[in-house]
Amino acid sequence: MKTSNKLKIFNDPIYGFITIPNELIFDLIQHKYFQRLRRITQMGLSYLVYPGAHHTRFHHALGCMHLMLKSVQTLRFKGVEISEEEEQGLLIAILLHDIGHGPFSHAMEHSIVNGVSHETISLLFMEKLNAEFNGSLTLAIDIFKKNYPRKFMNQLVSSQLDMDRADYLKRDSFYSGVAEGNINSERIITMLNVRNDELVIEEKGVYSIEKFLVARRLMYWQTYLHKTGVVAEQLLIRVLKRAKELASQGEDLYTSSALHFFLHHEINLENFDDNVLDIFARLDDYDIIAAMKEWRFHDDFVLSHLCKMILDRNLLKIKLKKKEVDKEKVALKKQHVMEKYHLSEKEAAYFVFTGSITNQAYNKDEQQIYVLTKTNKVIDVIKASDQLSLKALSKPVTKHYICYPKTLL
Amino acid sequence: MKTSNKLKIFNDPIYGFITIPNELIFDLIQHKYFQRLRRITQMGLSYLVYPGAHHTRFHHALGCMHLMLKSVQTLRFKGVEISEEEEQGLLIAILLHDIGHGPFSHAMEHSIVNGVSHETISLLFMEKLNAEFNGSLTLAIDIFKKNYPRKFMNQLVSSQLDMDRADYLKRDSFYSGVAEGNINSERIITMLNVRNDELVIEEKGVYSIEKFLVARRLMYWQTYLHKTGVVAEQLLIRVLKRAKELASQGEDLYTSSALHFFLHHEINLENFDDNVLDIFARLDDYDIIAAMKEWRFHDDFVLSHLCKMILDRNLLKIKLKKKEVDKEKVALKKQHVMEKYHLSEKEAAYFVFTGSITNQAYNKDEQQIYVLTKTNKVIDVIKASDQLSLKALSKPVTKHYICYPKTLL
Amino acid sequence: MKTSNKLKIFNDPIYGFITIPNELIFDLIQHKYFQRLRRITQMGLSYLVYPGAHHTRFHHALGCMHLMLKSVQTLRFKGVEISEEEEQGLLIAILLHDIGHGPFSHAMEHSIVNGVSHETISLLFMEKLNAEFNGSLTLAIDIFKKNYPRKFMNQLVSSQLDMDRADYLKRDSFYSGVAEGNINSERIITMLNVRNDELVIEEKGVYSIEKFLVARRLMYWQTYLHKTGVVAEQLLIRVLKRAKELASQGEDLYTSSALHFFLHHEINLENFDDNVLDIFARLDDYDIIAAMKEWRFHDDFVLSHLCKMILDRNLLKIKLKKKEVDKEKVALKKQHVMEKYHLSEKEAAYFVFTGSITNQAYNKDEQQIYVLTKTNKVIDVIKASDQLSLKALSKPVTKHYICYPKTLL
Amino acid sequence: MKTSNKLKIFNDPIYGFITIPNELIFDLIQHKYFQRLRRITQMGLSYLVYPGAHHTRFHHALGCMHLMLKSVQTLRFKGVEISEEEEQGLLIAILLHDIGHGPFSHAMEHSIVNGVSHETISLLFMEKLNAEFNGSLTLAIDIFKKNYPRKFMNQLVSSQLDMDRADYLKRDSFYSGVAEGNINSERIITMLNVRNDELVIEEKGVYSIEKFLVARRLMYWQTYLHKTGVVAEQLLIRVLKRAKELASQGEDLYTSSALHFFLHHEINLENFDDNVLDIFARLDDYDIIAAMKEWRFHDDFVLSHLCKMILDRNLLKIKLKKKEVDKEKVALKKQHVMEKYHLSEKEAAYFVFTGSITNQAYNKDEQQIYVLTKTNKVIDVIKASDQLSLKALSKPVTKHYICYPKTLL
Repeated sequence: MKTSNKLKIFNDPIYGFITIPNELIFDLIQHKYFQRLRRITQMGLSYLVYPGAHHTRFHHALGCMHLMLKSVQTLRFKGVEISEEEEQGLLIAILLHDIGHGPFSHAMEHSIVNGVSHETISLLFMEKLNAEFNGSLTLAIDIFKKNYPRKFMNQLVSSQLDMDRADYLKRDSFYSGVAEGNINSERIITMLNVRNDELVIEEKGVYSIEKFLVARRLMYWQTYLHKTGVVAEQLLIRVLKRAKELASQGEDLYTSSALHFFLHHEINLENFDDNVLDIFARLDDYDIIAAMKEWRFHDDFVLSHLCKMILDRNLLKIKLKKKEVDKEKVALKKQHVMEKYHLSEKEAAYFVFTGSITNQAYNKDEQQIYVLTKTNKVIDVIKASDQLSLKALSKPVTKHYICYPKTLL
Repeated sequence: MKTSNKLKIFNDPIYGFITIPNELIFDLIQHKYFQRLRRITQMGLSYLVYPGAHHTRFHHALGCMHLMLKSVQTLRFKGVEISEEEEQGLLIAILLHDIGHGPFSHAMEHSIVNGVSHETISLLFMEKLNAEFNGSLTLAIDIFKKNYPRKFMNQLVSSQLDMDRADYLKRDSFYSGVAEGNINSERIITMLNVRNDELVIEEKGVYSIEKFLVARRLMYWQTYLHKTGVVAEQLLIRVLKRAKELASQGEDLYTSSALHFFLHHEINLENFDDNVLDIFARLDDYDIIAAMKEWRFHDDFVLSHLCKMILDRNLLKIKLKKKEVDKEKVALKKQHVMEKYHLSEKEAAYFVFTGSITNQAYNKDEQQIYVLTKTNKVIDVIKASDQLSLKALSKPVTKHYICYPKTLL
Repeated sequence: MKTSNKLKIFNDPIYGFITIPNELIFDLIQHKYFQRLRRITQMGLSYLVYPGAHHTRFHHALGCMHLMLKSVQTLRFKGVEISEEEEQGLLIAILLHDIGHGPFSHAMEHSIVNGVSHETISLLFMEKLNAEFNGSLTLAIDIFKKNYPRKFMNQLVSSQLDMDRADYLKRDSFYSGVAEGNINSERIITMLNVRNDELVIEEKGVYSIEKFLVARRLMYWQTYLHKTGVVAEQLLIRVLKRAKELASQGEDLYTSSALHFFLHHEINLENFDDNVLDIFARLDDYDIIAAMKEWRFHDDFVLSHLCKMILDRNLLKIKLKKKEVDKEKVALKKQHVMEKYHLSEKEAAYFVFTGSITNQAYNKDEQQIYVLTKTNKVIDVIKASDQLSLKALSKPVTKHYICYPKTLL
Repeated sequence: MKTSNKLKIFNDPIYGFITIPNELIFDLIQHKYFQRLRRITQMGLSYLVYPGAHHTRFHHALGCMHLMLKSVQTLRFKGVEISEEEEQGLLIAILLHDIGHGPFSHAMEHSIVNGVSHETISLLFMEKLNAEFNGSLTLAIDIFKKNYPRKFMNQLVSSQLDMDRADYLKRDSFYSGVAEGNINSERIITMLNVRNDELVIEEKGVYSIEKFLVARRLMYWQTYLHKTGVVAEQLLIRVLKRAKELASQGEDLYTSSALHFFLHHEINLENFDDNVLDIFARLDDYDIIAAMKEWRFHDDFVLSHLCKMILDRNLLKIKLKKKEVDKEKVALKKQHVMEKYHLSEKEAAYFVFTGSITNQAYNKDEQQIYVLTKTNKVIDVIKASDQLSLKALSKPVTKHYICYPKTLL
């Protein structure tokens, strides 16, 4: 940010500069709800695998806005009419699309609250801000809810080719140093167009899309679903679960006041009211890490060991398998842990567990990627590709894992 | 890190890969003292100015080690003898040179403890680790203390051309996106040599050194001493000062147990014993931010407002001046704040204050940069430069500042 | 090159520095046969499509040597024994593997001589140099001919994962600015290993190989087989063909003495003797362009127009089709050209013609890519890939084209 | 270029994409005068030092145009009014500013013609194109001649901060791999403004300007005036000089028809008419290299040896000195060459000669760089810099050299 009082330009190692286009967006960025995103890492605990991956939701949101601005310029240049109000709506919708993320982004999405997705919470934040900013977010909310009549605008915010992916693949690749995940967002945007109110890619961009999908798949298996990241995330989820258990037993754990609330209340879609939103807005990565830093000295064997494992990066062993892990094998490992550490079966299950991870590079049922051919037809990218390799990409891949202690905890 | 159990390679966006050369260094990196550096940002609060600058001391330390390995290879290639033991010593010395940093690196160096530099604490950590690792850090400690008989080795760890600077300028430039600060560490290392036991740069590298010094100066004024970063850091220092004041008045503030200790004890060189070191080793950025997140709701006007300013990035106004700020002007501003918020003069001083920042691009008194001419003479880089512009660079530059509330707090 | 008399280091925008490892390789690079490669573009006439693609065979050869050095270091680190002599052989084999290329690399491979591949000519050069350097290239020649008993060494020089591809994909992507073609050669090399005397990729590298193959395919269709490049190349071939025709009719065309020889002699495998090699060694891009610059003023309608088309980048129109172009359509276009310019059918065929281009991203019949699993098995990369998408990549893709004049010539 | 018939976008490794803004500029780029620039290297024979430096005047001109477009956008955003006609004028003026360059850019500027600068020839080309394009280049010509009433526009095309330098420093650094020369053109453009009809840099850009000037100086000494490049260029000049000498003695040298004309006519400002311009327009690097490739077999000892030196990169030895080279030493070397090769003194002077190179990083007399302070004053950048180091930069540096044969020719 160039100046403290009239911040207008951000330095970005990826795009060079990100310019804040107007006063309203400036004010939204300055809002404490948005500033909170500075304290939520984009890639959760992946920094335990890739030490450079400490970038935040705040930075990602700015990047998305920047790419949205480029898309609007490109589409207008090609004759697609987009009004000033629509542009503002698109910019705000993408800027705020992740504002509902809780601590560690996806990692704890289902640990803090029950069955309330971050998209739902984003919407709650947007509605609250809309009230505060006198209705100037209404169009953005329509787009975000996919209710806006012009379908391609909704797609720019959320689809298999949205500005979210265009930024996060590039940014996560950049900060983690996994160079193969780098995509050419600029080129893809250059090839965007609109036909029948749908976002399409011009035919000459087919290879770029193939590469985009391959890069995405690579990023999933190499970073987002990296086995060390998976085990760290699973441990984090179990820390919260154990803390809630102890809290429900009347244990008074060291926590921030915001985390205290969520440890002691079961929050779901029904009871997620304005008051809860206010407390949620005070929660970020720091509440969790700071709590764990005290909990590692707690008397409870399970809680303290889980915390130490994460903080000192001394994680459980994890093994990936193509098939589901044999139940007897799990039982045996669990038995071993129970005996060695004098734990109950329920307690041992914190240290010996199985699960699965899955990824589908291209989901043609959900939301297709359309290609605009030179003869002006609109076809699915799979048909446009010479080699049908995309067909293969649309097959979901599932891997199973088992985690257990290396030796001593 | 490629695998969870035998971590041997780190991905680094800057150097590609960083390889861990041996078992001992692996074990040092795995140690909880070193893992702590994952929770200390390299550039303090600079991420409030440059949103990408969330990289950590942990990553920087690995980067330094990588460059040291390159330097050793280069110097050996040129015929400088370096034994296996010396290589290990150099690697460990640079790996651990910053292990004594407290929360937010430099920002709070003098707020947590009194008159104990991070170098001193690094040494304490190294000695403790030396005991734990049966004396295998002795040579590294000698180098770190500049006691090793081969002077150029001490210079590789600490001098105007050390591997510390070679990494941090490049890394900070990379993550902040201030491209002009980028230096070509690889080229500089290629031109290193040793003469009369001193580290020297071969003559053809003079332009690279000029550029290195200019880049360093630019990084100081554009990032490390960026006025918004300066005011954020000053506020952070004042948060701690106010918290200590309140603590001394018997106020029981929310803190982690480690921070609690330092709020309630005046620690200095004399009483910094093993027990203190243990508590210090539990302290990082998370203790401070987590505390501030609660303190922003504290009854104390000063403490709560200072915390909110940092957390919501709603900082004081700061003005830079070439001369010292007029005392009457400061008094007037302070008077204004006292009246508006019903504060005592002492309290108002938390929001209205002056100071100065200074930087010297090249300090020829402290530790010169030597150039090895083609005729095998060793001269100061200032003499080797055609244009004496370096002479100018060795003049310290000082800027004065005043901070005060924009309008309402 | 740092110094004129003892050149030891090259600046390379891609790898930073390329170091010449020893005296013999230095002398080979200095040899006029190798210096000739400075005057042969790596990508033929692709610079008419990508204006940055002016890099040369000389630079590519140095890059290959650099990567070979890295591979040797990596493999040795993993316990693969490679003697000093073998290292030298590998370096020389890859350095000289393209030394037999004629003007515009592949473009004119079959225009200057008949049925003599550039590999064959490379071998002739290597044997001549071997005589000159007293047999010190013998091992390199064995490797180049795939006669060396250690198979993986031959594969490092020529296979689907050789250092040739590792450099050219990266380099061509870099200079053309087709960022999607960028591959992470460094990472791929890091994952090389040897099993059963075959080059293998460690399992964790499977995604990188997938990406490598996708990038390669993309580079083929986007650059090497870019339709504008194809038409330029076809015109270039026809320039030579027409010139030979005219020469055979006794026309005394302006040419260099070397080109004169090849215009007036039909050279094939049988008559490609030492004397021919000497003349071939004087031929490069400059002979061809310089000749065309005069021929554009020649009386012959066909020759002059073909030359002008290339020099002024005013090429024929080209259309790509999935199926073979309809013969009647071609005849009609040809008829049109004959009438308009009063040309014979044979002459018109220079301006209206069809052809096809084909590419296979992965050829599993010719030379497989082997993956070394974590359980130490060696399997084909297609089996190792989760998604079989590589299977699709091994299907050859063919496209047909027709070229004809836009309007007026 | 994306398509052969409607070329609208160029791939550029540096800026990503370069878009051709309109039909007229498209037609100018398509013109054979402009296409000729594809055959003139930007950095002359520097590729003998930096093997990647094969980029052309064509590419540079496109890059300049791209940056000019960015500047116009930036200045308009800041409220500077620039009409459509003026924008077109600026784009054309910078696109064509180098169109008058002859073979090898600067290297042979004074060998082909006498006392006719490339700027003069650029103007002649522009006027000829203006006639051809019905006067649509008139405003561009005014700007190019610095006759346009709005001074800052002339400065965008030619001054110490023009778009020419902004592109060539970045581009030459990129292709040569001299990373230290890299400047942040984008950032500098972001900080441009206009005051009193002069181009100014906003104060916060002072460090970037310092770095720009240091980078420029570094590029001069490390690349443009690299001693190996200097000797190659001097040899090239002497090749032409010798060829002219032999031509004047009636020797019928192998040349292209265009080069033949300039070898046999003394062309200067007076006789540089339309007919000469036409022949000049056929001249490029290929005429020179192709001629040298034959001349290396010529009977004349001087001519053949000069040619071989360049083609085989087997150059004269060059030594740089701070003072003028002692005349007796030169005479001695010359004597030695005369005896060894049985040459006359005049002939020996082709192989033994002295000269000097000079560079001034900042010329404050010619055209200052102005800084716009925060208080809206316009001052010279030297005053704006804290450290006066720029003062040093404005001192010209001169180095003297002597060239002579290594041993045998």
